Amino acid sequence: MATPPARTIPVRTIHVRLPGEATDRSYEIACGSGLIDSVGGRVAADGARRAVVIADAAVAGSHAARVAASLAAAGAATTTLEVPSGESSKGVPMAGRLWAELAALAADRGTQIVAVGGGVVGDLAGFVAATFARGLPVWHVPTTLVAQVDSAIGGKTGINLEAGKNLVGAFWQPRGVVADIDTLATLPDREYISGLAEVVKYGMILDASFFAWLEGHAAELLAREPQALAWAVERSASLKAQVVEQDEREVSGLRAALNYGHTFGHAYETAAGYGRLLHGEAVAIGMARAARLAATLGRLDEAVVGRQDRLLASLQLPTTPAAAGAIEPATLITIMGRDKKSLHGRLRFVLPDAIGRVELVEGVDPAAVERVLSAP
Amino acid sequence: MATPPARTIPVRTIHVRLPGEATDRSYEIACGSGLIDSVGGRVAADGARRAVVIADAAVAGSHAARVAASLAAAGAATTTLEVPSGESSKGVPMAGRLWAELAALAADRGTQIVAVGGGVVGDLAGFVAATFARGLPVWHVPTTLVAQVDSAIGGKTGINLEAGKNLVGAFWQPRGVVADIDTLATLPDREYISGLAEVVKYGMILDASFFAWLEGHAAELLAREPQALAWAVERSASLKAQVVEQDEREVSGLRAALNYGHTFGHAYETAAGYGRLLHGEAVAIGMARAARLAATLGRLDEAVVGRQDRLLASLQLPTTPAAAGAIEPATLITIMGRDKKSLHGRLRFVLPDAIGRVELVEGVDPAAVERVLSAP
Repeated sequence: MATPPARTIPVRTIHVRLPGEATDRSYEIACGSGLIDSVGGRVAADGARRAVVIADAAVAGSHAARVAASLAAAGAATTTLEVPSGESSKGVPMAGRLWAELAALAADRGTQIVAVGGGVVGDLAGFVAATFARGLPVWHVPTTLVAQVDSAIGGKTGINLEAGKNLVGAFWQPRGVVADIDTLATLPDREYISGLAEVVKYGMILDASFFAWLEGHAAELLAREPQALAWAVERSASLKAQVVEQDEREVSGLRAALNYGHTFGHAYETAAGYGRLLHGEAVAIGMARAARLAATLGRLDEAVVGRQDRLLASLQLPTTPAAAGAIEPATLITIMGRDKKSLHGRLRFVLPDAIGRVELVEGVDPAAVERVLSAP
Repeated sequence: MATPPARTIPVRTIHVRLPGEATDRSYEIACGSGLIDSVGGRVAADGARRAVVIADAAVAGSHAARVAASLAAAGAATTTLEVPSGESSKGVPMAGRLWAELAALAADRGTQIVAVGGGVVGDLAGFVAATFARGLPVWHVPTTLVAQVDSAIGGKTGINLEAGKNLVGAFWQPRGVVADIDTLATLPDREYISGLAEVVKYGMILDASFFAWLEGHAAELLAREPQALAWAVERSASLKAQVVEQDEREVSGLRAALNYGHTFGHAYETAAGYGRLLHGEAVAIGMARAARLAATLGRLDEAVVGRQDRLLASLQLPTTPAAAGAIEPATLITIMGRDKKSLHGRLRFVLPDAIGRVELVEGVDPAAVERVLSAP
């Protein structure tokens, strides 16, 4: 593991190397403090003459306004389109509205889309960019922790249907990502903490040293201490970028490791009713269940289950499904069978062998799953 | 130029070689007679356990029913979704309906989409396939001439917005194309003839020998004589595939050659009001205007203008804009400035230097364009 940054918070650049069919699709993720006003210069250096900022309404007057001002200062003709906050914006009607607005602006392949906000705006704006005029360049300026460490990286874009989340989408890599940790200062506690679940996930699936570092810095992370936060974001983004470089389109199975905790988590999230659990909370519960399943199957030392539970708890994340309400195991198993990640209805899970190492396990015995789900 | 097929109509296979980011995306176009019942076997050989046929209502009871039966016979669980005929199906509402239907069928990346119909269904089903679950495999079974020689080949998918045609879409290559010329026997005359405009286009932009062959076989083509028709489809599809192999995503400018006749044609089509001119008719008028513009600019021998006019006329295609109604040149120029193919509002045209050779010409003098538009 590389070492955490020292006293000051330098800007770190993570390179994402991706071959292209026609043009190289490699790009950079800039991480650090004080970056928001640099977005315009970065996008303009990429050749932008016109830019359309697609902004979550919650940051339209703050972060997005600064991004738009920096774009204008860099000489790009800039328009901002505002999207109401919340998951309900991530659907066909809002995609249709944004397509129509881009058409009204006569956007073409020389127009750069700049998404400012959390996962909802990033996924939505990314999908709209992927599909307008068969593909506009897009930049991501994530302003939530979960977006900085997860959703803004890797090129997955998508919208929800009534039948399920992210059922429609495209793989569409950004031209660049700018993750400014200063934007995290004003996040509501619960949303910020929810993002820490994905940070823990990276340690569990890929990097035991990082996991140990998290164990030693839980208090600093909860306090949003900039040094610790910068390292948590940089290391997480870097680990995700490595996975995406090796398995961009989920072909080899490597990228599936990122779904650790998500099969259980998604089931709890759905069964509880969307909105009751934040995504990261559901993932924390899911990771705790996945570790228990691995232990039940004899794949993982019980001590690791406890160590993960303690780290999650020290970050004020849930480890038991109490927060989801009373849900029958059978309900959860039904939902998991319908999961996009299931194959022909057979249950499969990403399960840890040790801290920093996971495996995709197919055809897990439903009785073992039910036993784990029935535990408190 | 390869030689036309002899007495019988063998099945010809055109290979489209495309590198992939993760997996090879090469595929085959099968051309010939008696192919429709082979679709199931071909798709099943590609590993399909489940298939969803998306069919134009006009062929749902005929060609699409045979495709579905062949899929079922090959062991794929098959469902058919019917789409009303006509351009109005190619929009956001129908894409939304198909997405919801695929979700209701629990389609996943192991489900193959099979599009049966003309350009509307091919473009729509291709776009839905490109975006459902971030990409399902798709097969094209084009049943119109224009789809067999043009729209089913090359991976452009899309839907229309109220603001314009094909404004939303994706590049998404099929797993295979099956072009059975038998399906062309029942096409209405006007629609069949409209497709011949694109065939003439391939001769003009890429292959002088093919152009000369068309001049010698206009009567056979009008009579839909199978030998001639098979060669026209095979040669056109093959020429398009070559262009797509070299410039899949319109990066080098080579693919732009395929837009010969389309800048003028699109303007006439729009100004006349959609529905008055068929697309191929508008392209024929557009090619006649583009050749005149090339001659006006001193780029093309006047004799070639006449030769192209005579070939189009011998195929019963229009060469003058009379069919579009009375339209002011200024109206057409305004529309051309808004064209997706224009760059920052400057007029650019694909213009021939000779039969079989075209060039993309930027910044054409608007006065010359107006002179050509004002001619009868």
